[in-house]
Amino acid sequence: MAVDLRYDDEVQKTIAATEAFVADVVLPLEDEFAGDFEKAGGEHLRIELQEKAKAAGVFAPHAPVEYGGLGLNMSDRAPVFEAGGRSVFGPIALNIGAPDEGNVHMLAHIASPAQKEQFLAPLAHGDVRSAFAMTEPEPGAGSDPSALTTAATRVPGGWSITGHKWFITGADGAGFFIIMARTSGSPGESGGATMFLAPAPDDGIEIVRHMGTTDRAGLGGHCEIRFRELFVPDENVLGEVDEGFRYAQVRLGPARMTHVMRWLGVAVRAHEVAVDYVARRRAFGGRLGDLGMIQQMVADNEIDLAASRALLVKACHELDLGRHASNETSIAKTFAAEAYSRVVDRAIQMCGGSGVTDDLPLARLQAELRPFRIYDGASEVHRWAIAKRAVGRAAKKQQSQAAQ
Amino acid sequence: MAVDLRYDDEVQKTIAATEAFVADVVLPLEDEFAGDFEKAGGEHLRIELQEKAKAAGVFAPHAPVEYGGLGLNMSDRAPVFEAGGRSVFGPIALNIGAPDEGNVHMLAHIASPAQKEQFLAPLAHGDVRSAFAMTEPEPGAGSDPSALTTAATRVPGGWSITGHKWFITGADGAGFFIIMARTSGSPGESGGATMFLAPAPDDGIEIVRHMGTTDRAGLGGHCEIRFRELFVPDENVLGEVDEGFRYAQVRLGPARMTHVMRWLGVAVRAHEVAVDYVARRRAFGGRLGDLGMIQQMVADNEIDLAASRALLVKACHELDLGRHASNETSIAKTFAAEAYSRVVDRAIQMCGGSGVTDDLPLARLQAELRPFRIYDGASEVHRWAIAKRAVGRAAKKQQSQAAQ
Amino acid sequence: MAVDLRYDDEVQKTIAATEAFVADVVLPLEDEFAGDFEKAGGEHLRIELQEKAKAAGVFAPHAPVEYGGLGLNMSDRAPVFEAGGRSVFGPIALNIGAPDEGNVHMLAHIASPAQKEQFLAPLAHGDVRSAFAMTEPEPGAGSDPSALTTAATRVPGGWSITGHKWFITGADGAGFFIIMARTSGSPGESGGATMFLAPAPDDGIEIVRHMGTTDRAGLGGHCEIRFRELFVPDENVLGEVDEGFRYAQVRLGPARMTHVMRWLGVAVRAHEVAVDYVARRRAFGGRLGDLGMIQQMVADNEIDLAASRALLVKACHELDLGRHASNETSIAKTFAAEAYSRVVDRAIQMCGGSGVTDDLPLARLQAELRPFRIYDGASEVHRWAIAKRAVGRAAKKQQSQAAQ
Amino acid sequence: MAVDLRYDDEVQKTIAATEAFVADVVLPLEDEFAGDFEKAGGEHLRIELQEKAKAAGVFAPHAPVEYGGLGLNMSDRAPVFEAGGRSVFGPIALNIGAPDEGNVHMLAHIASPAQKEQFLAPLAHGDVRSAFAMTEPEPGAGSDPSALTTAATRVPGGWSITGHKWFITGADGAGFFIIMARTSGSPGESGGATMFLAPAPDDGIEIVRHMGTTDRAGLGGHCEIRFRELFVPDENVLGEVDEGFRYAQVRLGPARMTHVMRWLGVAVRAHEVAVDYVARRRAFGGRLGDLGMIQQMVADNEIDLAASRALLVKACHELDLGRHASNETSIAKTFAAEAYSRVVDRAIQMCGGSGVTDDLPLARLQAELRPFRIYDGASEVHRWAIAKRAVGRAAKKQQSQAAQ
Repeated sequence: MAVDLRYDDEVQKTIAATEAFVADVVLPLEDEFAGDFEKAGGEHLRIELQEKAKAAGVFAPHAPVEYGGLGLNMSDRAPVFEAGGRSVFGPIALNIGAPDEGNVHMLAHIASPAQKEQFLAPLAHGDVRSAFAMTEPEPGAGSDPSALTTAATRVPGGWSITGHKWFITGADGAGFFIIMARTSGSPGESGGATMFLAPAPDDGIEIVRHMGTTDRAGLGGHCEIRFRELFVPDENVLGEVDEGFRYAQVRLGPARMTHVMRWLGVAVRAHEVAVDYVARRRAFGGRLGDLGMIQQMVADNEIDLAASRALLVKACHELDLGRHASNETSIAKTFAAEAYSRVVDRAIQMCGGSGVTDDLPLARLQAELRPFRIYDGASEVHRWAIAKRAVGRAAKKQQSQAAQ
Repeated sequence: MAVDLRYDDEVQKTIAATEAFVADVVLPLEDEFAGDFEKAGGEHLRIELQEKAKAAGVFAPHAPVEYGGLGLNMSDRAPVFEAGGRSVFGPIALNIGAPDEGNVHMLAHIASPAQKEQFLAPLAHGDVRSAFAMTEPEPGAGSDPSALTTAATRVPGGWSITGHKWFITGADGAGFFIIMARTSGSPGESGGATMFLAPAPDDGIEIVRHMGTTDRAGLGGHCEIRFRELFVPDENVLGEVDEGFRYAQVRLGPARMTHVMRWLGVAVRAHEVAVDYVARRRAFGGRLGDLGMIQQMVADNEIDLAASRALLVKACHELDLGRHASNETSIAKTFAAEAYSRVVDRAIQMCGGSGVTDDLPLARLQAELRPFRIYDGASEVHRWAIAKRAVGRAAKKQQSQAAQ
Repeated sequence: MAVDLRYDDEVQKTIAATEAFVADVVLPLEDEFAGDFEKAGGEHLRIELQEKAKAAGVFAPHAPVEYGGLGLNMSDRAPVFEAGGRSVFGPIALNIGAPDEGNVHMLAHIASPAQKEQFLAPLAHGDVRSAFAMTEPEPGAGSDPSALTTAATRVPGGWSITGHKWFITGADGAGFFIIMARTSGSPGESGGATMFLAPAPDDGIEIVRHMGTTDRAGLGGHCEIRFRELFVPDENVLGEVDEGFRYAQVRLGPARMTHVMRWLGVAVRAHEVAVDYVARRRAFGGRLGDLGMIQQMVADNEIDLAASRALLVKACHELDLGRHASNETSIAKTFAAEAYSRVVDRAIQMCGGSGVTDDLPLARLQAELRPFRIYDGASEVHRWAIAKRAVGRAAKKQQSQAAQ
Repeated sequence: MAVDLRYDDEVQKTIAATEAFVADVVLPLEDEFAGDFEKAGGEHLRIELQEKAKAAGVFAPHAPVEYGGLGLNMSDRAPVFEAGGRSVFGPIALNIGAPDEGNVHMLAHIASPAQKEQFLAPLAHGDVRSAFAMTEPEPGAGSDPSALTTAATRVPGGWSITGHKWFITGADGAGFFIIMARTSGSPGESGGATMFLAPAPDDGIEIVRHMGTTDRAGLGGHCEIRFRELFVPDENVLGEVDEGFRYAQVRLGPARMTHVMRWLGVAVRAHEVAVDYVARRRAFGGRLGDLGMIQQMVADNEIDLAASRALLVKACHELDLGRHASNETSIAKTFAAEAYSRVVDRAIQMCGGSGVTDDLPLARLQAELRPFRIYDGASEVHRWAIAKRAVGRAAKKQQSQAAQ
């Protein structure tokens, strides 16, 4: 049999251990502090939870083995990250949260040995947090990367970066930034970006503010930032100059999928809370969970979760084969982000009045999940990209037929 | 022309004045305090805003003229309440918020002259707030009113009420309660409830807690309450003994529609915020609002709002004709509640990242609107009732055909 | 009470008489011939049914009284046309089918006295059928009217028309055509079309073919047509030269709404067939119509039908006030066309296996209704127009604020 | 790498060969005869196409190698059947249509050597067609198998079957029937059915009528049938007496998935026709396929097709592992059946007026696909089963927690 969807015994053990760790250690804290990581303890709690995760053998499943991780490929990360995502505090506890997880992935692929020593090692071990500074406010690089305006100019021994970024996750308190800045061309042109590594704090980096988003499970905020003549020495250029757009793709595909994994865990939890509720509660002379309209919501959630997981498996497999997989990751991300919103919304509806109170975690999980249809490329941008490829393939076929 | 959907000049003036008052006086406060009425000033702010509304001639448009209101019927309330709802603080400012507005309506229809003097007059004038205590936690009266467990037993000179209620809006600080309690029959039977008027505070009324719901624009919370041997003298029985279920219907139909009116205002505002955004912002070489997928969301919002309004007009007209209109109000409520959720969700999506930050009011408006699909009868309960009637009509027709 | 949605007694009698006529005389024929009018008798059947409709006093409710009709305005047409639409043969029987009904409307508003005598009178009386030749195949005027390519050129005493049209409803056998042709400007420019009246058959009019569409209830097909140097004398110019685009709007708004009315009848019938079915059938130990998932479909149909009707009432009222009502008719048309598709699809699903057989009329009604989301402006075109107006209003407001 | 979604080279060759065969040999015939197999040639055409399929090496990919097939497991069947389904005539041409394909599967698993010789061998080779007689009209076994009323009673040397069936695919002209009949218990009880093999034609089998369904691509109709004292000798009992309900499950899971595979091919074709259309056509000054609302439909189709395929892969893998996979097949079937309806509906909308004419195959493909949401278990029945399992799991967990 060629097609095989089973996980190795080792991976299955990791999944089970992660589930147990999250259920026993992490979830109670999440619920006690209503999913607000800063209130629950912030940086101190991060360190404490990560120590416990190391002790439980579930820390950093994605990081290279030589940096203390489990070295899982994308396919195997999927169920492990999902298990970690069952609590919104899980990703930080396991050191698989955004943006650190994606930065580990990126550094492992692109960084020089010295950069790995200086940046990847402490990040993989949880000694520091990091940030990834790409997104810019209008008219800069938002959905349209080619609009990049933050610029790095040549100075003796390195580069000077000036620019304006926002939605920079985890920026406040990050030990270093990966900064994407234009090194050639003009905004509106696609060529010419470079990735830079910049230790923080630094006088050239101003945390303007935390943007008040509906998700509260992270650490260090989603920040608005200004870089003002930030000096980055040549040795801190990550990869090649002017290859930044390509590297962004290297990072974005997998990072998109790990979002899908983690938030799948959140959606699964929301669904389980609701199913547990309707399996207990009685109304109209019977169990709530035996009413047809409730059953429809239960089933639709099961279907949405199964389809999200199946698309995720497919996209991860493509990435593991070394493919770009832009289409597969766009499809999985778009479907999953919308499915999770549907799932948590149905979960609330299944629980009636209790669903919109903080007696249950559902309302805050809805607020946590809502941004995913916008973060990492809004659904509309992914649909545009998916359609462009499909129509492009058809047009190419027409041309080749016309040429015959 | 028989069919006429135009509003009288007088009503049109009231609409315009209400819109202006809300825009100039109320909305800035809402935005300053992110829609949290308690934080914005609570009871003090209520009094202040209501004084201003009186001065502007837009106070209590629904209250009988003899009690200081404008005496509008349901059809005319619709556009005025919508205008009031453009700010989530508007309903309190105009004294048309739940549950006071529905209580005014109910007292005007059912109360004795003495009760009107004691309860309706101060409520209509904004001197006190009130609560309506019907909903109970499981296994009591939630979606299924016949499960009512709070009981009133005969004592000399009146009644003694003991029971457990929750989701009692505005209970904390209310000057009086209208309490629905069983006076005959057992839970599970439909017959035998009575409405009681009870001044508050009172030792027999315990505010157990505020239930933490996602909506924050009200005053006095959605509370869990216990009544413990609360004495109500005979003269405070509202209407007839054992007619409570019928009175509940008298209140529920119109109250359901005023929810639709007020929240229509919220949904309209959310839509306008988003349209304003896409009309300004540029991306992909053009105005955001000229992109097809954005246009689709704009149009779907326009359609949803127009259909909600049209169904509301129909249901209000039926109520004004003195009809029960259970079907029309169920249809309008169910459609509107779901439409508003869609509208605000699309509004967020149209604004991209900004949509999920507090740079815009959309995320909090989404939290404000979500409960409406559950409050006042969950969509599933209304659908069940709508379908039961439709299938019942068909079955009856079959029987009458079989009998021929 | 200003708002009034009640129909005059006279109109109510017409509604009832129309319902009875359709149920007793028309529907049995539709079901016998599976909704295929040509097979059921074609032109002969049309004449026979129209005679019966005249005898029943329900013929041509929309036509001016002086031409034998009942002279109903748009608001009153709505329930009457809906009643007529309960059978897909009803519109022809009542002489209110497309395109004749819209042509009567247009001629009554624009034609000269002599043209009324020659064209309107026989059409209103059912002596002839007519066609309206506007839509063109790519690259001509489809969704985008300004692309009009059919051209009328000046010749002595009149005009010579040459062009290519398709989807010309009822063209085969029509007694005359109203033809929209360009009289100035070039394709891509909006200005310069004229309406022409052309008796048929004529050597200058070729019926190329019937386009095989999924709807089969009409007479004379949806035809592809070629005009070749068709001579139209000056006296057959309908209205003013170069005013054709404006006249098209005069016709399109109301014609769009009468489509909504007629097809509402079809959707209502589909729903009733299904409700009747689930009220009879038993499965899983009870009546099918008591199962929650079936109830959900029943209720969703009731909601969709009520909302379609409410939006229709609104749009008709605007038209009766003499307004352009482009937005209201676009909204009503778009919502209704999509709602009807949902309604008939749910109706099929409610009936299980029988729903997809010709034991019930549902599958053919689905085929009949499907094109409505495309005819008379595809949903996408209407959404584009609705959004353009909304975004335009916002942009204008921004400009006026900026100017202050 | 544990997870592997790649197909063996051999399977990939079969996919490619099947695609080519369908495109070159089968599809032109389908289009010529508008998807009506009987009109295209019926039984004669079947034999002719199957000979060609044998010559092309793509015949009976699912049948055991010893019976002339390719012996593919479920996972490998998926892409091959999808390729075969690209034409609605494909399944018959490849001998993988319903019900023959499922009967081959069932006989290969359950039949005795003698039965394999007599029934499986000619069926696998395409010498005969077959039918599977399970579904009954109300009040018999439809969605609820336990309602089975067709009864087999003991007679000397065998059994006598009497009963009423409908929706028996391919019954007219079938060489033999597999009949499910009750051998113990009463309707409403689940136990006691047996599978029988009955050569046809036979005086005990009456083909009452072809049920006129919207799909026309099959051979032998969907028939209503009566069995009247049909004698079946003991040696034609398939498997064990009273094990029929279990065997039905053996057949149903895989048969459900092969429906998903074949109709995936249909949906893919519909999508490709539409994408080809929008890649060619121009409107509003550009290519139709570059308009945002069109792109949204293109992308939604791509997503729906990818999710259907991914769920199919998962369910097939479970079946190949020897699991029951009721949940996975229900989920895949329910999602796919609904997705295909969405896909073909969007495809029509993308093509505008042409979409509802027979200039394109889309309208007839829509009619072909509509029944899938009902055949093989209506979506509602699958949702009920999915929900029952999910709520049951939760209830069980609650009990085990309560017991601790």
